[in-house]
Amino acid sequence: MSDSPAYSHVDPRVEALVHDLIGRVADKWTMLVIEELSEAGTLRFTQLSRAIPKVSQKMLTQTLRAMERDGLVRRTVHPVIPPHVDYCLTDLGHGLGESFCGVWRWAEQNLAKVERARDDFDAARS
Amino acid sequence: MSDSPAYSHVDPRVEALVHDLIGRVADKWTMLVIEELSEAGTLRFTQLSRAIPKVSQKMLTQTLRAMERDGLVRRTVHPVIPPHVDYCLTDLGHGLGESFCGVWRWAEQNLAKVERARDDFDAARS
Repeated sequence: MSDSPAYSHVDPRVEALVHDLIGRVADKWTMLVIEELSEAGTLRFTQLSRAIPKVSQKMLTQTLRAMERDGLVRRTVHPVIPPHVDYCLTDLGHGLGESFCGVWRWAEQNLAKVERARDDFDAARS
Repeated sequence: MSDSPAYSHVDPRVEALVHDLIGRVADKWTMLVIEELSEAGTLRFTQLSRAIPKVSQKMLTQTLRAMERDGLVRRTVHPVIPPHVDYCLTDLGHGLGESFCGVWRWAEQNLAKVERARDDFDAARS
């Protein structure tokens, strides 16, 4: 942002990569997965899908696969019968979670203001 | 997240609202609009669409409208001929931008690690 000294003079290639990365990591499902794993430590796929309301199996699979590829989650296959798979955050994933804490705090602190703005906007148009 | 004291004991209704809000505010286009307005101050629609690569007119229109409704941007219609419309961040929008700074910093600092993780992931599957 404007007052981020680290951001103001990056070269365009780095900027493009940051945009790309932000687009991925900031999607809703990724954040909700980070939140759940951050609280629970390690979870199986079915536990994650129960913890995150409205996520489809397909979307959760895609999200976890992209997060594994980005180095944010570690997927562990346990060679038992029947085999089971679980997920936990890597150090990189924890770091991203920490940096998102500020956004969560903002959302909590400003929820009432946002709701008021929405009511005003809707009232002005009805 | 796990070490956010503000988050750990909220009631489920607040949690649902935070999830909803995060889902909206964290989408890629919203963040890119915040970034551009944070740097430029005030921009017209066409300036924003040039500044944000790959955004469609429709997506930018929807994003700005949702942001206006959430109280994040102020839309000003100037009664000149031809009339023109511009956008700037509200205090609420600036606050959200600030809280996202941590995420931008994380992305910049960890870009190399994420790229290495992706290369390893892809190499293991080819």
